[in-house]
Amino acid sequence: MAEQPVRAWRHVLDHIERDLLDGRLSPGDRLASERDLATDLGVGRSSVREALRVLEVMGLIRTATGSGPQSGAIVIATPTGGMSALLRLQVAAHGFPLADVVQTRLVLEDAVVAALAGAHDRDTGQAHRMLDAMDATGLTSAEFLALDAQLHLALAEASGNTVIAAMMAGLRSSIESYVQSGAATIPDWDRMSARLREEHRALVHAIDAGDEASARALVHAHITGYYAATGLTRDAAAAPTADTDTDTVSPTPDN
Amino acid sequence: MAEQPVRAWRHVLDHIERDLLDGRLSPGDRLASERDLATDLGVGRSSVREALRVLEVMGLIRTATGSGPQSGAIVIATPTGGMSALLRLQVAAHGFPLADVVQTRLVLEDAVVAALAGAHDRDTGQAHRMLDAMDATGLTSAEFLALDAQLHLALAEASGNTVIAAMMAGLRSSIESYVQSGAATIPDWDRMSARLREEHRALVHAIDAGDEASARALVHAHITGYYAATGLTRDAAAAPTADTDTDTVSPTPDN
Repeated sequence: MAEQPVRAWRHVLDHIERDLLDGRLSPGDRLASERDLATDLGVGRSSVREALRVLEVMGLIRTATGSGPQSGAIVIATPTGGMSALLRLQVAAHGFPLADVVQTRLVLEDAVVAALAGAHDRDTGQAHRMLDAMDATGLTSAEFLALDAQLHLALAEASGNTVIAAMMAGLRSSIESYVQSGAATIPDWDRMSARLREEHRALVHAIDAGDEASARALVHAHITGYYAATGLTRDAAAAPTADTDTDTVSPTPDN
Repeated sequence: MAEQPVRAWRHVLDHIERDLLDGRLSPGDRLASERDLATDLGVGRSSVREALRVLEVMGLIRTATGSGPQSGAIVIATPTGGMSALLRLQVAAHGFPLADVVQTRLVLEDAVVAALAGAHDRDTGQAHRMLDAMDATGLTSAEFLALDAQLHLALAEASGNTVIAAMMAGLRSSIESYVQSGAATIPDWDRMSARLREEHRALVHAIDAGDEASARALVHAHITGYYAATGLTRDAAAAPTADTDTDTVSPTPDN
């Protein structure tokens, strides 16, 4: 009996996953109400609520405000939020070392700019809007870094791969507090932000010009440079692959 | 008042995340009991339970069996399970197209084998054990594919990046049901499994030989070949970026 509550919410979660897999539930559909799910599955309403919270944090459903019997949650499938929550919590709990997060970001950013620069047509409109927004005078470092994150996300989204875009957003969000506190250690923020603006423009220019090799080299230098400047991830950023002769990729087992 | 229950569990989740970030909680530590958390945070026990379920599914805590006041959950920070659950649910809900999952796997596998082949020393012992296990006669396709997944995961883990290893495990798990049903469409499984065994051995051999270019080409052909053979992701595998003249999204510096 002791394990019953655990099993009950798992049962609800498995049931909803099965409905999603089999196409009985799709984005836009409304889940049965808590009460009906509890009755149908023979579990308590609190177990249903626990399963719904999991689905909500993972970006699978949006729960209506109110919790009456009519207020079934809506299936939304917005993966970005869930990935961010997961990675943020894991980094917080030291499940993922910061260095591994930065290295993974390098791998994904490399894939994004290579795909974009290599594409016959691409839409970097949103990236350009972010470049312009970062030119505004008087931005705080927090404001600037938020736009910076949006620029990188815009590029990931423009590359068209939703999984990579969600992972990138999640990785960035997972180290948000480190990035922000890193900025506070930089003595001359105006100078740093001018440098970042210049690097961003050069990167987007290389992408627009279809210059894949330059875009990849620029994004690598841009990311490692910033982390090195903030002293955040000396090991990860300075020498991701100390003993290979290619640049990126990073998972270096030997040091 | 209608939103109160939502806010209450979020409040618990934020509180625990803050404790993790600030180092007041670390892996191995025991959370306060449900009852104490409810009292300390001024929320109902059901809200505490909802937050704990989220943390459990995300691989952050292991809850003790039983739910008495003494049975606080233990912080574990095992990211792989959470990532798998998230990606599986999102693929099920069509939040992530299958093609994007396969492309992302190509990007990560490329990074893994490049790093391993480029490293001065590496431990492919677990990969070799999987190779040998796959040589056993009489394996069902399900058994073979489970070992196959473990081989790829062993390589990711050997590369030393925990984030990439968790993402790889999650991506594989998210398409598990598609991979299994794809195997059922293959007319001559013995022939296919012989081919896969051969490709696996060639890949690990290239890694052991430090031949990065071969390892990358082999892993790319191996993955796209299998998905094409099973008809699973014709679009993804054959032409991941329809409008590029490079092959994949994977970071291929040399084309």
